[in-house]
Amino acid sequence: MLVVMEAAASAEQIDAVVRHIERLGLKALPILGAYRTAVCVTGQQATKDPANVENFPGVKEVILVTQPYKLVSREAKPDDSVIRVGGVDIGGNGVVVVGGPCAVESLDQTRTIAERIKRAGGQLFRGGAYKPRTSPYSFQGLGEPGLEILARVREEFDLPVITEAIDQESLHLVDRYADCIQIGARNMQNFALLKAAGRARKPVLLKRGMSATLEELLLSAEYIMSEGNYNVVLCERGVRTFADHTRNTLDLSVVPAIKRMSHLPILVDPSHGTGKRTKVLPMSRAAIAVGADGVLIEVHHKPEEALSDGPQAILPETFEQLVREVDAIAQVLGRTLQPALAAR
Amino acid sequence: MLVVMEAAASAEQIDAVVRHIERLGLKALPILGAYRTAVCVTGQQATKDPANVENFPGVKEVILVTQPYKLVSREAKPDDSVIRVGGVDIGGNGVVVVGGPCAVESLDQTRTIAERIKRAGGQLFRGGAYKPRTSPYSFQGLGEPGLEILARVREEFDLPVITEAIDQESLHLVDRYADCIQIGARNMQNFALLKAAGRARKPVLLKRGMSATLEELLLSAEYIMSEGNYNVVLCERGVRTFADHTRNTLDLSVVPAIKRMSHLPILVDPSHGTGKRTKVLPMSRAAIAVGADGVLIEVHHKPEEALSDGPQAILPETFEQLVREVDAIAQVLGRTLQPALAAR
Amino acid sequence: MLVVMEAAASAEQIDAVVRHIERLGLKALPILGAYRTAVCVTGQQATKDPANVENFPGVKEVILVTQPYKLVSREAKPDDSVIRVGGVDIGGNGVVVVGGPCAVESLDQTRTIAERIKRAGGQLFRGGAYKPRTSPYSFQGLGEPGLEILARVREEFDLPVITEAIDQESLHLVDRYADCIQIGARNMQNFALLKAAGRARKPVLLKRGMSATLEELLLSAEYIMSEGNYNVVLCERGVRTFADHTRNTLDLSVVPAIKRMSHLPILVDPSHGTGKRTKVLPMSRAAIAVGADGVLIEVHHKPEEALSDGPQAILPETFEQLVREVDAIAQVLGRTLQPALAAR
Amino acid sequence: MLVVMEAAASAEQIDAVVRHIERLGLKALPILGAYRTAVCVTGQQATKDPANVENFPGVKEVILVTQPYKLVSREAKPDDSVIRVGGVDIGGNGVVVVGGPCAVESLDQTRTIAERIKRAGGQLFRGGAYKPRTSPYSFQGLGEPGLEILARVREEFDLPVITEAIDQESLHLVDRYADCIQIGARNMQNFALLKAAGRARKPVLLKRGMSATLEELLLSAEYIMSEGNYNVVLCERGVRTFADHTRNTLDLSVVPAIKRMSHLPILVDPSHGTGKRTKVLPMSRAAIAVGADGVLIEVHHKPEEALSDGPQAILPETFEQLVREVDAIAQVLGRTLQPALAAR
Repeated sequence: MLVVMEAAASAEQIDAVVRHIERLGLKALPILGAYRTAVCVTGQQATKDPANVENFPGVKEVILVTQPYKLVSREAKPDDSVIRVGGVDIGGNGVVVVGGPCAVESLDQTRTIAERIKRAGGQLFRGGAYKPRTSPYSFQGLGEPGLEILARVREEFDLPVITEAIDQESLHLVDRYADCIQIGARNMQNFALLKAAGRARKPVLLKRGMSATLEELLLSAEYIMSEGNYNVVLCERGVRTFADHTRNTLDLSVVPAIKRMSHLPILVDPSHGTGKRTKVLPMSRAAIAVGADGVLIEVHHKPEEALSDGPQAILPETFEQLVREVDAIAQVLGRTLQPALAAR
Repeated sequence: MLVVMEAAASAEQIDAVVRHIERLGLKALPILGAYRTAVCVTGQQATKDPANVENFPGVKEVILVTQPYKLVSREAKPDDSVIRVGGVDIGGNGVVVVGGPCAVESLDQTRTIAERIKRAGGQLFRGGAYKPRTSPYSFQGLGEPGLEILARVREEFDLPVITEAIDQESLHLVDRYADCIQIGARNMQNFALLKAAGRARKPVLLKRGMSATLEELLLSAEYIMSEGNYNVVLCERGVRTFADHTRNTLDLSVVPAIKRMSHLPILVDPSHGTGKRTKVLPMSRAAIAVGADGVLIEVHHKPEEALSDGPQAILPETFEQLVREVDAIAQVLGRTLQPALAAR
Repeated sequence: MLVVMEAAASAEQIDAVVRHIERLGLKALPILGAYRTAVCVTGQQATKDPANVENFPGVKEVILVTQPYKLVSREAKPDDSVIRVGGVDIGGNGVVVVGGPCAVESLDQTRTIAERIKRAGGQLFRGGAYKPRTSPYSFQGLGEPGLEILARVREEFDLPVITEAIDQESLHLVDRYADCIQIGARNMQNFALLKAAGRARKPVLLKRGMSATLEELLLSAEYIMSEGNYNVVLCERGVRTFADHTRNTLDLSVVPAIKRMSHLPILVDPSHGTGKRTKVLPMSRAAIAVGADGVLIEVHHKPEEALSDGPQAILPETFEQLVREVDAIAQVLGRTLQPALAAR
Repeated sequence: MLVVMEAAASAEQIDAVVRHIERLGLKALPILGAYRTAVCVTGQQATKDPANVENFPGVKEVILVTQPYKLVSREAKPDDSVIRVGGVDIGGNGVVVVGGPCAVESLDQTRTIAERIKRAGGQLFRGGAYKPRTSPYSFQGLGEPGLEILARVREEFDLPVITEAIDQESLHLVDRYADCIQIGARNMQNFALLKAAGRARKPVLLKRGMSATLEELLLSAEYIMSEGNYNVVLCERGVRTFADHTRNTLDLSVVPAIKRMSHLPILVDPSHGTGKRTKVLPMSRAAIAVGADGVLIEVHHKPEEALSDGPQAILPETFEQLVREVDAIAQVLGRTLQPALAAR
């Protein structure tokens, strides 16, 4: 930590800062500059948060140096983590394509789409039984019957299932029915839900919040891991900016940034990340090119009848093209598609 | 709703759009422009979301016209709502000042601050027993013992209490101990929590999310109201932007925008909205000048020892000045401070 | 400057950083932390930019401490600057209200509005003869004939004139005809124009760019001052964010932030800052309440016929109310309206 | 255009809107909804901007439908434009890699880097002789001597040169010495400079402003084209957001969005777009994967001694790898590297 003093700070003020730091059990070293003084602070965990020294008279700014996360950090675990979801690996040298509808609407709709996902080479299935919707009057998902549909479809097509939990109750059910628990962007800082996910048995797919920094995303993953569940997959799904040609701005540079700081795998969701069907294919290629461990794609065979998010769903034909192109791009990086589960 | 067709859209494509709209039970009127065609859509609630027509070939864009909220809307209720919190009114012609520490740390600390809030003329008390913290390793609040402290302090100083709930369990406790349930910015789209708050007995203070649009904030209020709890107070607490001179950018223009669209009262939180102690007083004056129904202020008698958010807490002396200045600004607008509860 | 090393940095890498810093004529002091090492850098201006050390192996981050601006800084000049514009002071204890149309359209229109500005108590007049427009097909201003109209109106109503320059040529003309040269938001980092303004005789009103940080705004002012023109007035006019209830997000917290860091006066433009006529009056009150030295207001007697920016212009009647309310708010802060020039 | 009336708008107010629209020479058709009325407006260019109707009583909102640009639009010219820069094509089926230092520092430095660019397979050279710097005290470029160095290097290595102009004077010189005139992000809305570039002989590389929407970028290109210069290349270089893991957020989704709306080629600059050396290679791959016509890369053989932007420059070795990987990705999309000029 570095405490930057005002140019006009008095010797007494600097002294008070030094004494306060030392009282907390840390070392404080004042560095006299030509223009102002800065106090370098070193040492292990203090009894109280030393950043409060910002409130002392004469202090201009406090600059934090040490990262606040531990378990997610690559410094803690240098090797890439590989997370197994229902028999399919996420991370490592392989690349996954997760496909499925925004929402589970019926057994028929879900089976039809799953059959196309499997045939196209998708290794995992997605589909919401619980939908967090901006308006209370929008379709909110089928609930547990939706989970039952997902479980049937998994058995029939050998497609492990990722689906969202939105509260404690749905989390218990998702943990029972599905292969991976998704925590959505709006719940990225629902810390009670994160802790509950940390006590679940299944892996967790954690989506970045709409205005979350990289540090906040990693700390939310840390919440899950600090409860004992180390199987966390991160997901970039677009952030909110002034740009209006897409619904969100997909921030692909976060992928190499995460790879540098954390050992956790990272997927990209170009469907929510752009909100526009015509952008999903090119941004999927870009996601793999930048180094993501896979993509999460909304697919619907009749998008004009979809109960939610129709405008961003691609057709099964486009999904087939997407798997082929993602595969080709992955090979440029020396990677391959993860093997799908063999049909029984 | 307006469906804008591509310039090159064929007559068949336009026809398909019109027929689809009509199948949903709505009226569709194609308007031939010099350059392109647009289809005006009118009528009541459709059987399916008509915006899905965006997926039809030849469609360039769908523009929504009707607002999706009902109960929060001023068109539904033209008069300002006045929400009573433990005997103190929020909204209408009066202005409130809510003060207190970020977190309840001890009975002593809370009593000391409450005494200063009351003496200065603050009508309501705030203080967190449950703290949603970015890091799992930060102080997370005292929990129920914190609520007990708040209840004791309320009795002693006749200060109704606003405090945050972060999940179903804490919500039930806050509903029992406190006078107003705060839903924080990170939970603004935790829809399960919003619905639970909609079934609580106490009024709800709903904070705007860090990247929430006005429409999303109003729809989150609609979630609460649609469950039967009409006592909702909104709160602007800063949004996330590129600007780095404050921790968040306090968006005061949302106050007159809300006043135009909704009947609900709106407070401003300049403590979280700026994250800087030196900005709290001037931004409080500005909040009242722009038309807010009150301000929510973090106060600490020893900010350098605060367990959380010390850098934005103001001293009790500054709080006294703040109440005086807020009062003077309110009078320019023909408003007055709401009366505080009389000491028993 | 603080050079933060990676946790895994070797002693050789740290050494290389220290030697590089010292070769630049600076002092380098390695601080061994429990977890990683940081190198504190002190000393005067180096021969090369020491921040390049970020490229050395083992370096994690470089944190700058010293501010890069000089003349604009309050540390350089502790007292508030008062800038005289055509006989009216901006800054100090007084508050100014600048009014006028977005664009000068005709002598008639300009006289009609100026008469109302003067009568209402506005001390300065604004109006564009050169309009930077997003589209090449929009009205671009009358040019020099517009400046002649402004000059005639100034004589007739004793209203000093602020008007925008968009290139070197218009800057020379504005410098001759007007009392204050406005540099618009889109040109805030048009450094050639800033330097030219720094060689002009008249004061400069510098508007904050749509995505400019506080530091960038101050450095643009530094460009003007470093050429010899010390008469700079800053202006907040809204920044670009995701929020869509106003055209821009007016960032009022920048006012106290600037007051803390710089001695220059600062105005607020709520017309461009919100883009909505109904937000101009409340945001003007808020601007004065937060401590601005005045407001810049677009006024039109027939906004529905305005050639540009009609939706944000207020009526002369509303302007009268605005001057009264701004005056009342200023008095709460112990300030008064600056005296207008006496009519001759 | 669609004029949305307030729910409470009276018949007289609707009538006044209709009559106003008709007076402007347009057609107005009121559409009665269940809840509110909207007025559809059609017809060619009006005598005055019809959007001013937003100021009429009872009007809630005006929604524009027709795009304001013409020459840049794909509707105007369905085929991709291919822009020839000093004998190398940008656009069409080929992909270009532009390399070079941020700033021209000396003949030696420039020759050394150019030799490596050419050998690695880069087809075009970049390097600044005029540097727009945030601080007036930073290195501002060598000026005309820098252009002379660039011209010598072009002759020696057969590398056509792209370099930035920052005002009218430098634009004339760049037009004379170089093969392509760059307009930087900070000048994207310096309309005087755009018009001057529209009268130059050489092609123009137009960078997106830091907070420019897609529409604004296209309208700035329209400024250049409307003056007669149809040889415009667009460039995405990152936008400003809250995200802090990169200096800017590179918005790759703008590439397919531009391809859909405009016939102009588009490059991506991952060096400025991320500001971090370690992100340049992965984001270059992603840029080509998403469909960009090339990348613009800062290269320096001694980045730790660079006079500007050292932290984002990559080494010549990395540039070689970048050209190879960009080539491989392009082939997945059925594209190839554009042929470089043959050495004489």
